[in-house]
Amino acid sequence: MLKEAVYHRPKDNFAYMYDQDTLHILIQTKKDDLKSVSLIYGDPYDWKEEKWQADSKPMRRSGSTDLHDYWFAEIKPPFHRLRYGFRCKSEEEVCYFTEGGFFDSMPNDIANYFCFPYLHAVDLLSSPSWVKDTVWYQIFPERFANGDAALNPPDTLAWGSAKPTPENFFGGDFQGVIDHLDYLVELGVNGIYFTPVFTAYSNHKYDTIDYMQIDPQFGDKKAFRRLVDACHKRGIRVMLDAVFNHSGYYFPPFQDVLTHQEKSRYKDWFHLWEYPVTTEKYPNYDTFGFVGSMPKLNTSNPEVKNYLLQTAKYWVEEFNIDGWRLDVANEVDHSFWREFRQAVKSIKPDVYILGEIWHDAMPWLRGDQFDAVMNYPFTNKAIDFFAKQEITAPEFAEAITKVLHMYPANVNETAFNLLDSHDTPRIATLAGGNKNKIRLLYLFQLSFIGTPCLYYGDEIGMTGGHDPGCRACMEWDEDKQDQQLLSFVHSLIGLRKNEPLFGNHADFRFLETPNDKCVVYEKSDKTGRLLFFLNNSSNGTLLTSSKFANKTDSVEWCLSTAGKLEKRPAKILDKMELPPYGFRIFEQ
Amino acid sequence: MLKEAVYHRPKDNFAYMYDQDTLHILIQTKKDDLKSVSLIYGDPYDWKEEKWQADSKPMRRSGSTDLHDYWFAEIKPPFHRLRYGFRCKSEEEVCYFTEGGFFDSMPNDIANYFCFPYLHAVDLLSSPSWVKDTVWYQIFPERFANGDAALNPPDTLAWGSAKPTPENFFGGDFQGVIDHLDYLVELGVNGIYFTPVFTAYSNHKYDTIDYMQIDPQFGDKKAFRRLVDACHKRGIRVMLDAVFNHSGYYFPPFQDVLTHQEKSRYKDWFHLWEYPVTTEKYPNYDTFGFVGSMPKLNTSNPEVKNYLLQTAKYWVEEFNIDGWRLDVANEVDHSFWREFRQAVKSIKPDVYILGEIWHDAMPWLRGDQFDAVMNYPFTNKAIDFFAKQEITAPEFAEAITKVLHMYPANVNETAFNLLDSHDTPRIATLAGGNKNKIRLLYLFQLSFIGTPCLYYGDEIGMTGGHDPGCRACMEWDEDKQDQQLLSFVHSLIGLRKNEPLFGNHADFRFLETPNDKCVVYEKSDKTGRLLFFLNNSSNGTLLTSSKFANKTDSVEWCLSTAGKLEKRPAKILDKMELPPYGFRIFEQ
Repeated sequence: MLKEAVYHRPKDNFAYMYDQDTLHILIQTKKDDLKSVSLIYGDPYDWKEEKWQADSKPMRRSGSTDLHDYWFAEIKPPFHRLRYGFRCKSEEEVCYFTEGGFFDSMPNDIANYFCFPYLHAVDLLSSPSWVKDTVWYQIFPERFANGDAALNPPDTLAWGSAKPTPENFFGGDFQGVIDHLDYLVELGVNGIYFTPVFTAYSNHKYDTIDYMQIDPQFGDKKAFRRLVDACHKRGIRVMLDAVFNHSGYYFPPFQDVLTHQEKSRYKDWFHLWEYPVTTEKYPNYDTFGFVGSMPKLNTSNPEVKNYLLQTAKYWVEEFNIDGWRLDVANEVDHSFWREFRQAVKSIKPDVYILGEIWHDAMPWLRGDQFDAVMNYPFTNKAIDFFAKQEITAPEFAEAITKVLHMYPANVNETAFNLLDSHDTPRIATLAGGNKNKIRLLYLFQLSFIGTPCLYYGDEIGMTGGHDPGCRACMEWDEDKQDQQLLSFVHSLIGLRKNEPLFGNHADFRFLETPNDKCVVYEKSDKTGRLLFFLNNSSNGTLLTSSKFANKTDSVEWCLSTAGKLEKRPAKILDKMELPPYGFRIFEQ
Repeated sequence: MLKEAVYHRPKDNFAYMYDQDTLHILIQTKKDDLKSVSLIYGDPYDWKEEKWQADSKPMRRSGSTDLHDYWFAEIKPPFHRLRYGFRCKSEEEVCYFTEGGFFDSMPNDIANYFCFPYLHAVDLLSSPSWVKDTVWYQIFPERFANGDAALNPPDTLAWGSAKPTPENFFGGDFQGVIDHLDYLVELGVNGIYFTPVFTAYSNHKYDTIDYMQIDPQFGDKKAFRRLVDACHKRGIRVMLDAVFNHSGYYFPPFQDVLTHQEKSRYKDWFHLWEYPVTTEKYPNYDTFGFVGSMPKLNTSNPEVKNYLLQTAKYWVEEFNIDGWRLDVANEVDHSFWREFRQAVKSIKPDVYILGEIWHDAMPWLRGDQFDAVMNYPFTNKAIDFFAKQEITAPEFAEAITKVLHMYPANVNETAFNLLDSHDTPRIATLAGGNKNKIRLLYLFQLSFIGTPCLYYGDEIGMTGGHDPGCRACMEWDEDKQDQQLLSFVHSLIGLRKNEPLFGNHADFRFLETPNDKCVVYEKSDKTGRLLFFLNNSSNGTLLTSSKFANKTDSVEWCLSTAGKLEKRPAKILDKMELPPYGFRIFEQ
């Protein structure tokens, strides 16, 4: 047994409360090293070796990465507290792994065992329950629809008349979104994430001037209220973008610093290094990246904290928004985010707090800060496999398994699973315009654990490279929209809504990667299972399919010529032909 | 290279702020597997492969456990943010380990690297600086000294006239402590930890009746104020014991529940399962352990929280105490402790918060809850090796190395390193009365990283088994005190105070375990080093000593016949004889 590879440490993704009575416990071992693992457990104040041995619970192998296996067990301690260890069996040996290390026989000093001292509901990471059933749609407001020409900023171009540039404007606004809400309802979307809407000079509005005002090009507060109400009336939640790491250059406190220097009453609002504060040749203050026009806010200054928390509360309290997406969330202090959570949840307990973090975000997901993060590790691997074909199917399955084991299941179920955004090229472009690949991307995204987000226009096949390319005007001419793709996405969203197995209420597991281009996975719960076969190759392939089936007679979700998914009776035969970029979905 | 054994995850003990400009970064690898590890790093917004390669920093092997090596590097990122990875070299290969996994060559996508997004002073675990230089003395007030017979509870026995039982009383009180403060000052102690002093029926006072009152057997609030002032005048800090997990049976709110049942206004102060609430046959409410007389407090109830936080603040604000030791801290919710920290630090920023946690306590030591925990992993291993001789020297060195690598250095430097307490047998008893072993225990404790605590009376050789045996009356008859041991402890405390290398201001490292009974370790900083040779055997042993020496001519701390440690010139020869239970300490 390779003891050096065994890892477990209570809390985080290894031992956590799934709900207020339930613990999930996981352990990492070397891949293919152990035959079985059992959880040995009991009450911390009731050590009885025989009882603990008798109660031991087999763990199931919940997935494998390139190097490791993960083993999982769920347990409901009757007194809400637990001591535990692991009985590990390999071909050659049996041993016990505890906080005190490895033992040949079961250690009889309870102090050796791992401890989850008490399950406190208040410490549970409790994301709002509605998020699990949400399909998000990301809108970049300047580019979705121009509904009120009176608000057009100077030099506004005709809708779609030019390529997007870092500077141009097309006049997208709130009225435009309201005008097209029925389109979103029809598509099945029930959450909108808006990139920033507060006063700023740029078209992207990440250079905030006034956090308490709507940018006049989008409308005023009345229009915003109309927008939120119209969304809510249609069952659509609204999430705004909070850019709290840094302000814009024209944020009055920063302008005050530039004008009054060390005499400015705002000098402690930023991280200034010396006077005079200058943006030339390099900024001599902390910034986002090295961008002088984005001075970093000093979020540990009580004045700044108070200002930003008032802002955060204001838009929830006054306009009833449903979520905050936190820009550059990783560079703001944990202490601020803890207060942020308290502040916004005190007003609306089921508000969703979503951090923009591109790397491992465990330290922000311990129940005291965010509900979830933008799931870029998912994004990257889905793009690498389906769109770019830069990794093999086994590499993809291992990487996605790793993503699922990085965080507690509570986090995974509300992770924000995007395929692209205003910060990346669009999927159609990443997939080289190959609609088959896009279809597989959507199929995977919309059958995976988490809450999927569509970037506006992707569903009709819009293309666009890196910013600003990906920020083109939404195409409203139906003749220029890919109606087949739209039907397909519509079908998938419908399935996710109407078939619990498609969404977050079922377990996800890779079953096999029969070759470098194919993945077979299942979604299952007590009521049944879905079997997915995906072929991400320009060649057809023949799979041995019967080994995955519970029974031959099944139901299949098939693609109609109109691009819809329809239910038909089907048999799972011994062998199955998957056409190039084909897929088959069976329900058993 | 055994890639499966490599572990690193940012934050906790693997990547943490040591001060507001400095990061410590560690990585775990299989023991004796790698030749070297280098840290590859740079600014997250300034990716330049050549620069990152050129800047790479060799890591030093900071220690080894039975299975793993740990590698360490310190870094001060100029812009307070860092991306990083590890270049790992074994005999056969070189590879790069990053958040994205292993690579044969340096990955050129910065998103692969581990991220420490920003060093925020507000997130730093900043224990009070005075703690690092504190030598604690634990007092069980009922048994330290009876200074005011007028306060004696009924049936008080004459001091030391009987063995301690769970029920008997000897009349220890605050005046008794005040009367003997000069003894503690002479010993060198500069911190006292008092077990509970609030109103309760028992002699141990863990069954709190009123958190806002001093138990009358100890004195009143005036007496307590006199005690704190008398300590402060002598440079001694005062830490009290907060029993917030559960109340005593006679805590009025619990009595109210028993009387008024579901009509009690205190019914939500506890975790009741059903009515009628009863303690028979088993308590039908949450308790400490299964002890019906210790009902668990519902610390997420705002009323309870408010009551306990007011208590915590009151004793700091009104009596200027310096620390809170938190009883059964692991079973109280994290959320409560976060508010507790805010509350008490808002009144006295350098108050010390010490949790009683016997197992891995990382989740409480992330800067938002405790400053430190009672270091039972240290205790257990020191006792197992020196007192009980149940583990070998290599096992001891590996275990202590593991303890040092469990937490950030900030935590280790203020860890509460006890050898015993009111909850364990005394060291003299654990060591079977062998004074030589006790001397080695104290030498190790008082030269180790952390803040040592002496349990009252141990320093004069008092014995006693498990509770209640370990709670005997302090022996004040000098003829019955072990004066040699007292001198030795006095000398060690003096060294710790006057020689920075003895205390927290130097690095600790095991150099070798020449056989199963001997350990060789060093304490070092830029100014010099101390070399320790300890022989925990009833047999003498011959060691090859020259290989550890920087130079032959040295200074040695030697034990005088009176039991004091005195400085003498000495040579470190090629071979050195260590007598049975002998030690030698060289300064170079």
